[in-house]
Amino acid sequence: MSWIPGSKGLRYGGDYNPEQWDRETWVEDIALMKEAGVNLVSIGIFSWVVLEPREGEYDFSFLDDIIGLLADAGIDVDLGTPTAAPPAWFWKKYPTAHPMTRDGRTLGFGSRGMVSPSSPEYRRATVAIATKLAERYAQHPAVVMWHVHNEYGAPISDSYDDYSVAAFREWLQARYGTLGALNRAWGTRFWGQSYGEWDEIDAPRVSASTSNQAQRLDFQRFTSDALLACFIGERDAIRAFTDAPITTNFMATNCPSIDYWKWAQEVDIVANDHYLVAERTDNHVLLAMDADFTRSLAGSRPWILMEHSTSAVNWQPRNIAKRAGEMARNSLSHVARGSDAVMFFQFRASRFGAEKFHSAMLPHGGTSTRIWNEVVQLGSDLGALEPVAGSRVTASVAIVWSIESFWALDLEWRPSVELGHRERIEAFYSALWGLGVTVDFVHPSADLSGYDVVFAPSLYLLAEADAANIDSYVSSGGTLVVSYFSGIVGENDEVPAGASPGALRDVLGLSIEEFLPLYADQAVALSDGSTGSAWADDIVLDTAVAVDTYVDGPAAGKPAVTRNTRGCGTAWYVSTKLTGDDLLRFVTSVLDASGVAVDAPPAGLEVVTRSTDSESFTFFINHADAAAPVSIEGTDVVTGEPVSAGSVVPAGGVRVVASARP
Amino acid sequence: MSWIPGSKGLRYGGDYNPEQWDRETWVEDIALMKEAGVNLVSIGIFSWVVLEPREGEYDFSFLDDIIGLLADAGIDVDLGTPTAAPPAWFWKKYPTAHPMTRDGRTLGFGSRGMVSPSSPEYRRATVAIATKLAERYAQHPAVVMWHVHNEYGAPISDSYDDYSVAAFREWLQARYGTLGALNRAWGTRFWGQSYGEWDEIDAPRVSASTSNQAQRLDFQRFTSDALLACFIGERDAIRAFTDAPITTNFMATNCPSIDYWKWAQEVDIVANDHYLVAERTDNHVLLAMDADFTRSLAGSRPWILMEHSTSAVNWQPRNIAKRAGEMARNSLSHVARGSDAVMFFQFRASRFGAEKFHSAMLPHGGTSTRIWNEVVQLGSDLGALEPVAGSRVTASVAIVWSIESFWALDLEWRPSVELGHRERIEAFYSALWGLGVTVDFVHPSADLSGYDVVFAPSLYLLAEADAANIDSYVSSGGTLVVSYFSGIVGENDEVPAGASPGALRDVLGLSIEEFLPLYADQAVALSDGSTGSAWADDIVLDTAVAVDTYVDGPAAGKPAVTRNTRGCGTAWYVSTKLTGDDLLRFVTSVLDASGVAVDAPPAGLEVVTRSTDSESFTFFINHADAAAPVSIEGTDVVTGEPVSAGSVVPAGGVRVVASARP
Amino acid sequence: MSWIPGSKGLRYGGDYNPEQWDRETWVEDIALMKEAGVNLVSIGIFSWVVLEPREGEYDFSFLDDIIGLLADAGIDVDLGTPTAAPPAWFWKKYPTAHPMTRDGRTLGFGSRGMVSPSSPEYRRATVAIATKLAERYAQHPAVVMWHVHNEYGAPISDSYDDYSVAAFREWLQARYGTLGALNRAWGTRFWGQSYGEWDEIDAPRVSASTSNQAQRLDFQRFTSDALLACFIGERDAIRAFTDAPITTNFMATNCPSIDYWKWAQEVDIVANDHYLVAERTDNHVLLAMDADFTRSLAGSRPWILMEHSTSAVNWQPRNIAKRAGEMARNSLSHVARGSDAVMFFQFRASRFGAEKFHSAMLPHGGTSTRIWNEVVQLGSDLGALEPVAGSRVTASVAIVWSIESFWALDLEWRPSVELGHRERIEAFYSALWGLGVTVDFVHPSADLSGYDVVFAPSLYLLAEADAANIDSYVSSGGTLVVSYFSGIVGENDEVPAGASPGALRDVLGLSIEEFLPLYADQAVALSDGSTGSAWADDIVLDTAVAVDTYVDGPAAGKPAVTRNTRGCGTAWYVSTKLTGDDLLRFVTSVLDASGVAVDAPPAGLEVVTRSTDSESFTFFINHADAAAPVSIEGTDVVTGEPVSAGSVVPAGGVRVVASARP
Repeated sequence: MSWIPGSKGLRYGGDYNPEQWDRETWVEDIALMKEAGVNLVSIGIFSWVVLEPREGEYDFSFLDDIIGLLADAGIDVDLGTPTAAPPAWFWKKYPTAHPMTRDGRTLGFGSRGMVSPSSPEYRRATVAIATKLAERYAQHPAVVMWHVHNEYGAPISDSYDDYSVAAFREWLQARYGTLGALNRAWGTRFWGQSYGEWDEIDAPRVSASTSNQAQRLDFQRFTSDALLACFIGERDAIRAFTDAPITTNFMATNCPSIDYWKWAQEVDIVANDHYLVAERTDNHVLLAMDADFTRSLAGSRPWILMEHSTSAVNWQPRNIAKRAGEMARNSLSHVARGSDAVMFFQFRASRFGAEKFHSAMLPHGGTSTRIWNEVVQLGSDLGALEPVAGSRVTASVAIVWSIESFWALDLEWRPSVELGHRERIEAFYSALWGLGVTVDFVHPSADLSGYDVVFAPSLYLLAEADAANIDSYVSSGGTLVVSYFSGIVGENDEVPAGASPGALRDVLGLSIEEFLPLYADQAVALSDGSTGSAWADDIVLDTAVAVDTYVDGPAAGKPAVTRNTRGCGTAWYVSTKLTGDDLLRFVTSVLDASGVAVDAPPAGLEVVTRSTDSESFTFFINHADAAAPVSIEGTDVVTGEPVSAGSVVPAGGVRVVASARP
Repeated sequence: MSWIPGSKGLRYGGDYNPEQWDRETWVEDIALMKEAGVNLVSIGIFSWVVLEPREGEYDFSFLDDIIGLLADAGIDVDLGTPTAAPPAWFWKKYPTAHPMTRDGRTLGFGSRGMVSPSSPEYRRATVAIATKLAERYAQHPAVVMWHVHNEYGAPISDSYDDYSVAAFREWLQARYGTLGALNRAWGTRFWGQSYGEWDEIDAPRVSASTSNQAQRLDFQRFTSDALLACFIGERDAIRAFTDAPITTNFMATNCPSIDYWKWAQEVDIVANDHYLVAERTDNHVLLAMDADFTRSLAGSRPWILMEHSTSAVNWQPRNIAKRAGEMARNSLSHVARGSDAVMFFQFRASRFGAEKFHSAMLPHGGTSTRIWNEVVQLGSDLGALEPVAGSRVTASVAIVWSIESFWALDLEWRPSVELGHRERIEAFYSALWGLGVTVDFVHPSADLSGYDVVFAPSLYLLAEADAANIDSYVSSGGTLVVSYFSGIVGENDEVPAGASPGALRDVLGLSIEEFLPLYADQAVALSDGSTGSAWADDIVLDTAVAVDTYVDGPAAGKPAVTRNTRGCGTAWYVSTKLTGDDLLRFVTSVLDASGVAVDAPPAGLEVVTRSTDSESFTFFINHADAAAPVSIEGTDVVTGEPVSAGSVVPAGGVRVVASARP
Repeated sequence: MSWIPGSKGLRYGGDYNPEQWDRETWVEDIALMKEAGVNLVSIGIFSWVVLEPREGEYDFSFLDDIIGLLADAGIDVDLGTPTAAPPAWFWKKYPTAHPMTRDGRTLGFGSRGMVSPSSPEYRRATVAIATKLAERYAQHPAVVMWHVHNEYGAPISDSYDDYSVAAFREWLQARYGTLGALNRAWGTRFWGQSYGEWDEIDAPRVSASTSNQAQRLDFQRFTSDALLACFIGERDAIRAFTDAPITTNFMATNCPSIDYWKWAQEVDIVANDHYLVAERTDNHVLLAMDADFTRSLAGSRPWILMEHSTSAVNWQPRNIAKRAGEMARNSLSHVARGSDAVMFFQFRASRFGAEKFHSAMLPHGGTSTRIWNEVVQLGSDLGALEPVAGSRVTASVAIVWSIESFWALDLEWRPSVELGHRERIEAFYSALWGLGVTVDFVHPSADLSGYDVVFAPSLYLLAEADAANIDSYVSSGGTLVVSYFSGIVGENDEVPAGASPGALRDVLGLSIEEFLPLYADQAVALSDGSTGSAWADDIVLDTAVAVDTYVDGPAAGKPAVTRNTRGCGTAWYVSTKLTGDDLLRFVTSVLDASGVAVDAPPAGLEVVTRSTDSESFTFFINHADAAAPVSIEGTDVVTGEPVSAGSVVPAGGVRVVASARP
């Protein structure tokens, strides 16, 4: 199964912005692409002003030329619509389309990023350019896929301009039907905020105190939907001319404004951009999380890594460069977790503009460099990995990822600034990574029946139906692990009737009498010797039993960790922030109790398997400074040589071992 | 003497926001109020949009109903005017009334808080709704008092909109009469800021550098007065219909924008809201300070605690919950210091909106909870404390609290960011609290003759007449303790002629040749072994003598602490920041020298006495982890049992002992 | 040679703002000036509203009077134009001239500072008042020089108002001629930013992401030029009436918005304001750097210290006061480095307004104070130093100071926030100060042939011609020391073709394959035992040799410090941040290798020499706590006594020794 009809093997390449260079350089670049094994490039992403230098005046000669050259070289094209870069003439002509920040500042031209997503002028202009492009290139044999826009949601997403306010009101009318329903959902009876007319409603701009949280939550939903409408407008314009896959590049775990669960339904294949947080030292774990989340978004469909970097980026405080082998490990970790492509931003490093210090496949220093040599080697290795394409990754453990919990919990006036859906997801994911357990991410409404264990870390917002879904999973025999501050509010940030955690009381077999946020530096001791921080609860057990109790702190003597039998299943609750070895020990004990086989690899060794019906490809990615044993026998997919007992993966290296599926 | 004509005993209850609930819940709530001993609730505070759903269209059915139910249950009503919550229709209709921040951002609707206090539309609308309410409910037997607005000054106070600018000019004309007088007062000859026409004057909005400090100080005075005019407008509208007490809820030591000394003259009784700073560990001391300041504002009148919380609030970074007994200690510390009521925000915890994570008398968890049990117990105890109502607290020591020093010293371009009127007040208050000394707060113009010792901590701004008042107090035999950076400027932030501290040179018997701010982490040694920080002075002694000298630092060898005999009295000066035991030792030595009897209680035990002409009620509030002795004999007011030698107050507990007055 | 025709000796005095005081005080002040030896005062700097109380209505009586009194006392006048203080009437009448911040906030009146420098109303009004002043006072014998405006660039420089945008477009048209040239220079092909019409171009206001760096760089050039045009307008208006020197006060190393290399060509003499960074403990080094830079700006012309403070300022977080002797050391360090005047802000301390806590020559405490006594002593000493006036300082070592590198490197999206042209300049200057080496600063285009060694610390932006200038210096026999991240971009922030450092590859004999920013707290070891931080490079040697290699870190085993022979000269490259003793050792080794004689003074002793053709004046300024030897023999210029072997300069003291020039 391939995501580009008629093609096979993995895809390799990156963004290419040829408008920066003269034609002579294009020719040189294409020769170098061939040398590196590049077989797919994304072009046109910022080319609006080149293609439409004045409103309604088009000039496609540039694109004709470069696509022709690429086609001649046998390199496929992922053709971008340039709508992330509205031209200067657009900004000048349509001042009411300029984006406005939450505190009322109108942003200016001169960087990148779109205008107000609700601007009718923008909507019209983007559909027009997308239509022109599709009309002209849909039948071009080199154009194998379409890349709408660039990174929706970055660097701007929510806008508080007049168009957005008007569109927000329409969105609310569609959602609630009546003002009465809206007033109830938003709880406007408190603080005297009830609306009597639709046009009294504003975007939740900065006000004297904290804004109505349900309003802010809806504005975030609206913003994601407004951007999605932009995408759909362009996608449908293109679809009228072609059946080729149409996508846009996500920033899976790193974009705070997009509901990717919803968006993933609208793209033909899921494509993702991933960049390291330069100064973190656990980037290999975060990268794996991002790849696993992207795979989970794609579900049963293929997915691809659309952008990452060969080395340093340029927009972080200290842009740490990747060291020898790191680009390959990064790339192959994505492949190991299901990506059928390895793409970079960008092919040739810029000499001008904002990203000239961003690494590229071809650095300023040219082809004599370490980076170029590794790029060529990676291209060669990916060629050898052709059999891996289309194979699948499966997982028996899942973590619930709720963008709405993310949004809602990050609003103001929560019990503690230490609370975070993302923070706990990272913590649990890291523990599972350390144990070598492959993880899927799931929406709270997903079918959970295929998982042995499901983790719900600080799943703050939980719609009633989703809570029922989770309860049903447990009752049917599943194991659920809930971390503190989960199930606290429903879909409009409302507290359900009765004690917390409203919708999870029954499945957890307990209620929480009071939240007990801890002081900034406070540590609490648990009876098993663990140390908690940030949070505790005053728990009243119902059907649950205490697995661990607090030795000190505000809940001294009370349950800290509980376990409840619910139908055929089990639900665990952990009421404080465990980290490091304490969390690892807890997760291990849950997996043990659930019968999940854990064979933890040596520290720093990442082991992941992709399979077809008949064959398994196990990736051994060694992030450590010493060689590590390869735990299975078979054939090295890159070298073709046999892998037997005693084989190792060298420090910093990667091996992919093919073996027959049992 | 009671503050509600015809009533006796202490009042117990809180804010009640019934518009959040259905009528069935009202009935349940009122039954629970009775169970808890609640005898007063504040209603209507955010009800504007319910009572006036469209401009000029009133609907009082909701209020008729709930007041009727409360009246039937024998629960008195503190009826709020809802003017802290202008409705959405008001915001839509009157955009020129929207508040504007100092940096020019217009704030939006959707949280809480008022519009521009100088908006004529707002003034007219608030008087209209207050008039309607008074007309309708003034004669209602359940309505025993009136609660205008909510927490004037929070979350917004100063506004830089056009209405405010116009009103500021009028206020200045009234204050100065002529532009010449204004130019002189503001020192506009410096930096070329002289005004030639009144309408050249703007609010002190953000400018390229620091704004004229006298202008900013006057804008703060104006802001406090503009808000006060709002209060007076509503108060007078109500007064036309009733003689019942009319008040508004202060935030005594915690509102930076209101001159409560002035406001206290305009309310019938002083009512105060108090919330802990969740992450401080000396909250019991800060609470006591707040209560003492509130009592001092009330002077000879009763005062009440209008709001506090049963446990955590929801708007701080980490909202630490109160633990068992803490709510009772908090409540009774207020009563001990003179409050005749214990009121909470709010009766039933919200399920929607901004404050749903704020604790309440009735938590989400209902009546089976620790909090509810303690609420019921407290209600019972307060019933037993009926004899305490109306008794008075007296103090022989006072601290000068000058809101104008607070304002002026917090402006930009002071010699050191370490300087703070509030910081030093807290430090001296805390030392006195530790010694068990009850403290009054006084305005610098107050009659000080009743006090043995008066402390003036960083009393930066001191009007000439107030300095004379303090001098006269000393000359007549009083003891004055002045901490650094006091008496530095007069009422318009102007430096008096000659060396500092202008108006205090004579009474202190010294002059300061130069201010010596210390480095961020610098410590200086004093000859008595104390350590100073933050500040030192280069002191030239006149009639004063050096009590302590600097051993090192920029003033090495020069006086650090001085004492001056002035007429029949004594004035001390301390020129550096003493803290902890060093400050305690200094304060003790001053009290000793002044003949103030100090009988320091065990650490963590708060001892305060309220008295009538014949009887004393001594409160023993034990904030420590061990039982503490009760130092007097008499009768336990709550239990009715005798208290004799050897009696104790348990760890975390409170005892109130009645004894005959000597 | 004297900078005031017909005068001799050093000048002493300061700003005087007599409009703050009554005439009686003027008389007293002038008597005190005489007592202190004051012979020059700057007046009128903030007097606009006094001189032109209404637009076009002038009143010079105040100025006539005070200039007359000063003239009678024989005190010369440096007459200011008051254009840093546009009056309130100007602000009211010309709202479109109000300055606007980069994020769109219009700033208000009430502090100090100008309006939009591109406002035609402002330009017209300032030329008008300057003309009136020149007309009236040009022939006044007391007016010996002119002081245009005050501290251009502070507190405001760049403005984003409409006038500025229009002027920016005109400036760009003049610079680039065609839009095509501008688009090429700014690299607008990246991110689709090409301009099709001039009026599409805006100021680089806050946008969704980072702005085009070349645009921002040009806006900084434009801003400096717009302010310079303001100066030139006034200067030329005055020049029409007088040949007296006209200047404005610079803030040499401390103003981020002015290209002083360019400005220095337009003033008759260079005048500088210098203030300590109160909480730094190496202020004596920073002061020396500022004085050396100011001297370098003046080139062969005299220069003067126009403002400093007698003790504390008032606008820093903790305004540490100067201690006994410090004012004299500060003053004489400026004189030692070439200043022919010692001037203060201000003569008499303000009692009103923003700067009342700023020290002055005459403090609030009057003439009995330490400060006044030291002011009088300094005046006496400066009188005795008359022979020093007009003598010159020479240096054999230079540091490149590029304001454009400063601007460009401080923009967003650089490889590391640790990078800074200023940071490395300070580091190298401090090492040279510690070695007692006198330093000139040079523009990258300067004639370098007179220097033995030239340092280029993080000289990020380097125009092609300037790089050639530096290369030619080395080839002709010079020694160049380049610190990391130099020569990275050309004049429009563009990366030259090929590996870094583009224009310096040949002279350094190496290329950099990759930048290796270090983690925040990372240290790397070098083979000579030094420790680097912040930065490393992956260096490929061409003709250079490795002097030191990295022992660990991302470039382990590769060159850290290199040396290249180029023609007759030598070029060193240091690729990491060395500090303290490591940097001192490196600089020493370079100086040794270059044959620069170094005779390091004892720690804390500053030794600098001014010379005439026949005589040397060597200043020994002792910043340490112990007496230090005077290393040469001659005559003490202040006391007239002989200085011989064994003479010392006391702790905290200063001696100036005259000796015949060899």
